[in-house]
Amino acid sequence: MNNDARLKETISSYDLENISIATVCSHSSLQIFHGAKKEGFHTIGIAVGEKPRFYDAFPAACPDEFLIVESYKDIVSEGVVKKLLEKNAIVVPHGSFVEYLGAENFLSFKVPSFGNKHSLTFESDRKKERKWLEGAGVPIPRIYDTPEEIDGPVIVKFDGAKGGKGFFVTETAEEFYQKIKEHKNCTIQEFILGARYYLHFFYSPVKSTGYQLKKGSLELLGMDRRIETNIDELFRMRILREGSLGHSKNSIQPSFVVTGNAPIIARESLLPKVFELGEKVVEESVNIFGGLTGPFCLETICTDNLEFKVFEISARIVAGTNLFPSGSPYSDFIEPDLSTGRRIAEEIRLAVKSNKLDEIIS
Amino acid sequence: MNNDARLKETISSYDLENISIATVCSHSSLQIFHGAKKEGFHTIGIAVGEKPRFYDAFPAACPDEFLIVESYKDIVSEGVVKKLLEKNAIVVPHGSFVEYLGAENFLSFKVPSFGNKHSLTFESDRKKERKWLEGAGVPIPRIYDTPEEIDGPVIVKFDGAKGGKGFFVTETAEEFYQKIKEHKNCTIQEFILGARYYLHFFYSPVKSTGYQLKKGSLELLGMDRRIETNIDELFRMRILREGSLGHSKNSIQPSFVVTGNAPIIARESLLPKVFELGEKVVEESVNIFGGLTGPFCLETICTDNLEFKVFEISARIVAGTNLFPSGSPYSDFIEPDLSTGRRIAEEIRLAVKSNKLDEIIS
Amino acid sequence: MNNDARLKETISSYDLENISIATVCSHSSLQIFHGAKKEGFHTIGIAVGEKPRFYDAFPAACPDEFLIVESYKDIVSEGVVKKLLEKNAIVVPHGSFVEYLGAENFLSFKVPSFGNKHSLTFESDRKKERKWLEGAGVPIPRIYDTPEEIDGPVIVKFDGAKGGKGFFVTETAEEFYQKIKEHKNCTIQEFILGARYYLHFFYSPVKSTGYQLKKGSLELLGMDRRIETNIDELFRMRILREGSLGHSKNSIQPSFVVTGNAPIIARESLLPKVFELGEKVVEESVNIFGGLTGPFCLETICTDNLEFKVFEISARIVAGTNLFPSGSPYSDFIEPDLSTGRRIAEEIRLAVKSNKLDEIIS
Repeated sequence: MNNDARLKETISSYDLENISIATVCSHSSLQIFHGAKKEGFHTIGIAVGEKPRFYDAFPAACPDEFLIVESYKDIVSEGVVKKLLEKNAIVVPHGSFVEYLGAENFLSFKVPSFGNKHSLTFESDRKKERKWLEGAGVPIPRIYDTPEEIDGPVIVKFDGAKGGKGFFVTETAEEFYQKIKEHKNCTIQEFILGARYYLHFFYSPVKSTGYQLKKGSLELLGMDRRIETNIDELFRMRILREGSLGHSKNSIQPSFVVTGNAPIIARESLLPKVFELGEKVVEESVNIFGGLTGPFCLETICTDNLEFKVFEISARIVAGTNLFPSGSPYSDFIEPDLSTGRRIAEEIRLAVKSNKLDEIIS
Repeated sequence: MNNDARLKETISSYDLENISIATVCSHSSLQIFHGAKKEGFHTIGIAVGEKPRFYDAFPAACPDEFLIVESYKDIVSEGVVKKLLEKNAIVVPHGSFVEYLGAENFLSFKVPSFGNKHSLTFESDRKKERKWLEGAGVPIPRIYDTPEEIDGPVIVKFDGAKGGKGFFVTETAEEFYQKIKEHKNCTIQEFILGARYYLHFFYSPVKSTGYQLKKGSLELLGMDRRIETNIDELFRMRILREGSLGHSKNSIQPSFVVTGNAPIIARESLLPKVFELGEKVVEESVNIFGGLTGPFCLETICTDNLEFKVFEISARIVAGTNLFPSGSPYSDFIEPDLSTGRRIAEEIRLAVKSNKLDEIIS
Repeated sequence: MNNDARLKETISSYDLENISIATVCSHSSLQIFHGAKKEGFHTIGIAVGEKPRFYDAFPAACPDEFLIVESYKDIVSEGVVKKLLEKNAIVVPHGSFVEYLGAENFLSFKVPSFGNKHSLTFESDRKKERKWLEGAGVPIPRIYDTPEEIDGPVIVKFDGAKGGKGFFVTETAEEFYQKIKEHKNCTIQEFILGARYYLHFFYSPVKSTGYQLKKGSLELLGMDRRIETNIDELFRMRILREGSLGHSKNSIQPSFVVTGNAPIIARESLLPKVFELGEKVVEESVNIFGGLTGPFCLETICTDNLEFKVFEISARIVAGTNLFPSGSPYSDFIEPDLSTGRRIAEEIRLAVKSNKLDEIIS
């Protein structure tokens, strides 16, 4: 029996009156527990070594129990799996969860998890992700095969460059070659300039009201802009150096490390485009891997032609949703006090009621 | 009978127990419907061609009924007017509403609308608007008649430049002439540097409590900063080009297209100045066209001398208020859960109760 | 009897059923009154000359009574003190309060005030504050004794430069001497580049639940980023001048005047570090002056190595908390509708109940 089939069987044996919601204590876990508690679920925080002390500071987001493991890999051990299954646990994956556990371990994990695990393969592999976006027919930045093709601003990205260090922008092939000799280990991507919008969607395959897709419905729960360090502040240094460029050997170079998030909204007249993006990405996901389920995020730039270019998909809850534990300017138009974490818990509740739990777990 | 008189007559024949609130589905319409529904009004969404699909995603902001028209101009047709009057509709204008319908059509529209239509003439004509601001006695940026007068940083704006394209900053007449030969089709405006604050006010001619003006009262419901694309992100490109300026023929030029909004607050010690600005603008509006009514926005820059310079007035609800469908850091000090959309509905309710509906519609 | 002892005596004679919360009408006073009113306290607004008119616009934050004084110094006069004591007033200090009154006057003020007055001495003296931070063992920017030591980007700050005018960044001793001849009246500080986070903490010496310190507990109530004028907008001018540097005699120079605040959050995985900073600063404060009590703020920069460098401590409520009169993305995980202002009122309530009022006033 493959793991998919095994998990469907597992969930069919769950005590549906006593489901627990579990996740690893990081990333967006406070929000996930906070939402689950509001919906009346038992909650389990999985932590390495010891209970994270800062949870004490947030009683309304503190899980009912902690499951302490020795290492992240330990989460898939027989003992931990047994404990989680005994509690009828549904695990909610987030960015750190999958990163810490490893994609392989997560794919063979014997505890039912919220959403479609197969989205992972497409999210973590840049080429597969690009095919997904192309298949969906949403606007994406052009990739240049050779420097000679450069016909406007491009950003040159190096594989494995930590935090985007060394990335540069250029506008001609000549400039490109002045900066580096070859282009083997770099990607030459169209430089798209505009406002960054991270769009927080939720796709429910089981909800029959709302913005209808071929099957289920699509929601927009919020938007944020990531705070990227140090690129978002580097202009201050440049200004304070009065235009000189900082080329001494100890000068600070641009980097793109996400340290947090700020709340934003988009013009209401852009919402039809926003939903179109979300819809196309969902429908294509249904075609290629059975559909992403639950929260996902499109990372876009809105240009001054009011077009959104999609850079990336996060096929799970993103940390930007942590801005809105009690609702966002968008979720307020759905129902009061609705976070993405709470929406996940609602979805589990709805699936239980309509006897469709197997459609939202994997 | 002129239209003003006709509309007063119309409103006097309305069934005041069954007023509807109607607007065109765009701009800030979700918020307007959301607020009107909370206040218990029947709501009508006017849409061209078909019901906008994204409304399905926001049930708490979805109007009770949609009125589908063939084109925006069709809104003033006899048939549509009849339908709206039958529903005792008060139309709430917003930026897109007036833009789509055309100012002329709106001025002769036979359905009562919230606020004072005559503010439009002053808001849409830059010279009249400037006179309004000058008459109010609020600080505004200097306009230079000739390049020779330039004595500090100025921004040179070209008439009809879409999204602010081609705008540049200069500091001397020489620099000016290096960039352009003549100044016939451009405005030379003092360049004010500082933090941009968009101040969301609400003027009620009928409310007798609160911050009292000669007649009625003034409220501050929120603040935002507009996200201007691409100017707000262009520094990233400049940094990533390591200071080179992007003068190849395909280089990206600055533009100022509003794509969204971000929430901000001002220092509490600035509030007396903020209210003074709002008060002066309202009192002058009473003098010159009978007074603006309801929501309006002053677009300001706060300099490092802590002075606000006013650039523009929006004499109606602005899209930045969409940040606060359940209250802002300012409206929370008035009452919980108060959006500008809800405040409009409250104002209609208040005017009905105090038999002053004719004072807040036109 | 010293003032500390006198105030303990005063508070022991208070009618604990009828405590008033008083503060000067500025800075964060709307929030303080708003929170105190929600907790059912009688509230007193101290204002110079006349009641500030803008309070009329915010009924839910308007104090129950105003105490009009002739000047800020007048607050410590016998007459005013008598009135405050009659009302069993506890005064909540904020940035403007202490600034207007003067530290000396505040230290000898005969009305009990919330928190520990002795924190003031350490907050207002840069050298003492630095010792506090060093003693706490939190990361702080390096101070260079001589220009010759410069080995990377530094910011050169001039003593008493209003709004940070004249500050510049340099990377070498040579560059330093090109710009100024001597370094007597300036500080050469390591230039830390990253995202600015202002962390809003609350330390309760009397609360026994939550994130436990040696005594009492620590809370995180929010975060903001200050809006600094004009430095945060100056890049727009630079871009619009197409890279030219603005060296005409009337050119705009960088400045750092705080005009307001914007809401942000940090990655959840950074919270352990955030609490560690808060904890270390509190524990050291207990060692050196008996402990800061109530709200305080650490002004930090988060680098692309995900390290926080602490620049400053505000040992009292900061204006950035005004963003969250009805709760922040962090306080929502504690309880709904919790502002820092309300938390202060709660703390007074809690101290009264547990008979520990003398531990939270001074």
